[in-house]
Amino acid sequence: MAGHWLTFFFTSLLVSAMAEASHCSTKGLPLVRNISELPQDNYGRGGLSHVTVAGAFMHGMKEVEVWLQTFAPRSGTPIHRHSCEEVFVVLKGSGTLYLASGSHEKHPGKPQEFRIYSNSTFHIPVNDAHQVWNTNEHEDLQVLAVISRPPAKVFIYEDWFMPHTAARWKFPYYWDEHCFEAPPKDEL
Amino acid sequence: MAGHWLTFFFTSLLVSAMAEASHCSTKGLPLVRNISELPQDNYGRGGLSHVTVAGAFMHGMKEVEVWLQTFAPRSGTPIHRHSCEEVFVVLKGSGTLYLASGSHEKHPGKPQEFRIYSNSTFHIPVNDAHQVWNTNEHEDLQVLAVISRPPAKVFIYEDWFMPHTAARWKFPYYWDEHCFEAPPKDEL
Repeated sequence: MAGHWLTFFFTSLLVSAMAEASHCSTKGLPLVRNISELPQDNYGRGGLSHVTVAGAFMHGMKEVEVWLQTFAPRSGTPIHRHSCEEVFVVLKGSGTLYLASGSHEKHPGKPQEFRIYSNSTFHIPVNDAHQVWNTNEHEDLQVLAVISRPPAKVFIYEDWFMPHTAARWKFPYYWDEHCFEAPPKDEL
Repeated sequence: MAGHWLTFFFTSLLVSAMAEASHCSTKGLPLVRNISELPQDNYGRGGLSHVTVAGAFMHGMKEVEVWLQTFAPRSGTPIHRHSCEEVFVVLKGSGTLYLASGSHEKHPGKPQEFRIYSNSTFHIPVNDAHQVWNTNEHEDLQVLAVISRPPAKVFIYEDWFMPHTAARWKFPYYWDEHCFEAPPKDEL
């Protein structure tokens, strides 16, 4: 009986490892992929649907990464900054971009607000703290986000007056966590 | 009379220079821009509509650039290669990606063909010669293209059997030509 359970346990482990490996590797992936069939998840963040359209860990990208993100009403990104470029294209819905240009101050400070809307585009200045939020009560907000220097390395703020030095470094980021392989430790 | 003409001539030059300057600079541009209101042109290429959504020359991008391109039936990109990454997201229509992986040969060689379709994505391996073509007779093909290392530096082939060494370097690229300022020459 114990033998059966062990066989089941190790088979499950193997199947799960294989599934994970194929999900985190380009091997066997077609060159042209249907975005609707790519893995999507909320990674524990309410209201989010994230799809890595082209990613560093998942598709071997080295210089750019593209995400498709859908935010339900009253959801959005955390307040965060990163030292890479980011371009947004809004595909559906509307919302608000909060952007603080106070990277030279101790904290981001009160952000400017910008209305974002379907078929609009904007880019985030490197290192400026920002937040994209679906402020439309009735409709999802869907964006394509493009970043440079993948994988994403993000500093997260709890509020706009948290000191830059207290912002929490989040790496690997939510969707990269299960594909991330820590580099071997230097034994010296 | 000659005075009037000269005044008209120089005023026209000035107005044209100012228009060009504002078209090629982020000064006065809103942070959030309506993509439908951005300049679009075919740059002398039949069947093309190109919009620089976020560009190096036009918007000061340094690491990524995003284009919206629409190809009428029986039109597409030239056969070309570049040593940057490129990701496509197909927004509308369908067509064919031709991709030659023969960067280690003397010429690209006969390309592989891949069907591309609305809501599909693909990325081009660095330095592989490729061509995106609208092979649908009835509908436009519309894509978002993302490149790294902007501005675009492209080698163009007349056919798939042109030697790599004969491919024509096109810099600045069509849509960057009128915003490009050549660096001052080294006087030494």
